[in-house]
Amino acid sequence: MDLQQNKQVYEMPHQLAYYECDDTGHPSMSMLLSMMTMVSDAHCISLGMDTATIQQTGGAWVVTEYDGQLSPEQPTFGDQVILGTRAVAYNRFFALREFWMDDVQHANRYLHLRAIFVFMNLQKRRLMSIPPEMITPFNSPEEKRLPRLDRPSAITTTDPASRQYRVRYFDIDANHHVNNARYLDWLLDPLGGEFLRNHRPTKLVIKYEHEVQAGATVTSQYQLVDNDQGLHSRHVILVDGQVCATAELTWIDN
Amino acid sequence: MDLQQNKQVYEMPHQLAYYECDDTGHPSMSMLLSMMTMVSDAHCISLGMDTATIQQTGGAWVVTEYDGQLSPEQPTFGDQVILGTRAVAYNRFFALREFWMDDVQHANRYLHLRAIFVFMNLQKRRLMSIPPEMITPFNSPEEKRLPRLDRPSAITTTDPASRQYRVRYFDIDANHHVNNARYLDWLLDPLGGEFLRNHRPTKLVIKYEHEVQAGATVTSQYQLVDNDQGLHSRHVILVDGQVCATAELTWIDN
Repeated sequence: MDLQQNKQVYEMPHQLAYYECDDTGHPSMSMLLSMMTMVSDAHCISLGMDTATIQQTGGAWVVTEYDGQLSPEQPTFGDQVILGTRAVAYNRFFALREFWMDDVQHANRYLHLRAIFVFMNLQKRRLMSIPPEMITPFNSPEEKRLPRLDRPSAITTTDPASRQYRVRYFDIDANHHVNNARYLDWLLDPLGGEFLRNHRPTKLVIKYEHEVQAGATVTSQYQLVDNDQGLHSRHVILVDGQVCATAELTWIDN
Repeated sequence: MDLQQNKQVYEMPHQLAYYECDDTGHPSMSMLLSMMTMVSDAHCISLGMDTATIQQTGGAWVVTEYDGQLSPEQPTFGDQVILGTRAVAYNRFFALREFWMDDVQHANRYLHLRAIFVFMNLQKRRLMSIPPEMITPFNSPEEKRLPRLDRPSAITTTDPASRQYRVRYFDIDANHHVNNARYLDWLLDPLGGEFLRNHRPTKLVIKYEHEVQAGATVTSQYQLVDNDQGLHSRHVILVDGQVCATAELTWIDN
């Protein structure tokens, strides 16, 4: 692919480290989301928008939701994969980005995600309009309306399974915020080792509502629902009763 | 370096991902130890000893202790580094291995560690003599006595600072055991964000005594000691009163 010709798209090779994989030998969901952040950062850097340049705007890109599919067949640690991303479209406040993880021949697409990004004023901790110099370099079309991503279904039981997690120092990343990939560890850990070893996710929908702060204790609740559309887990992450994230995954037997 | 000529040594390039770095922008201690495992795995594989071949022996390599130094200057996410290892020497039960992380010109050595490995019978969960086919490919010398690594000093206070951590599903790695790098997160998290942001480690000594099992809750205790040799933190990881690991780090102001 000639990056000079298509600034919308960026790809990078990546060798899966064993510590990016879980007990199943395949990459964990939190590490997959971390890899997606890595490739979009690399995309920005390749077009001259490094961390320092972005920080000069007083803001930062923040992902607010993901939806997407996982192939039942997933790579194993040691495998070489291709991480890719495309700046699909944007408007004043929102940018749509697509992500994938393929094998090196592009014969298998292991993961395909869409994500909505906003630009956050870091001082005021609120949305700002996307600075033109942060979006025009991607050459992606400006569109009044962006497609809506799938949303997680709500938990319907009044007595969901629940676990608490204290945010640890090492959940905070080099951007000085609780890494949004860590939410996946809190979401999935309550399902337990037996469930996670014997099922694999084929679909993920997650919506980030409020940032979890360093030092907080999060409550992770979930409900399993087995219906016509298959086995689903519905999740919510709460801090002091406030919803910080909701998510839904679809599972098949391993 | 011509690997054909020197089977004792193996090096690989690695680009630091942002999720291998903590709030300081530099790689976290647990990720550094994970990278060391990655390069020794790659060393084994390069000489024909992949996971399947090792498993056929009924055993696995297990690290029992590390000691080493960190440079005050550390790389930042996005940097390219060289991970290296050398199979130094071995005897019937123990193997000594050296690790390093350098910049790409080998002008700066960011990290230099020594490690003692044993070979564990996975069924009986006890030491076995190292199978010759697992050690002779490295061409390292057999030595009656291996050098002793530095050992951590014991906590002397009767009332150390203490925190509890439940082992999570994602602390278990593709080898189906609690990843020994995770111990570093439990060891260091109790020191708190302010201490960890304002100090950097220059020396690490860790001794693994008993394996932490999935589902356990670990107690992480520490004591800060400021003496002629500088500022030290002494640590112990306990499960149900049994010592699973002890460690000591030396710190300088950041």
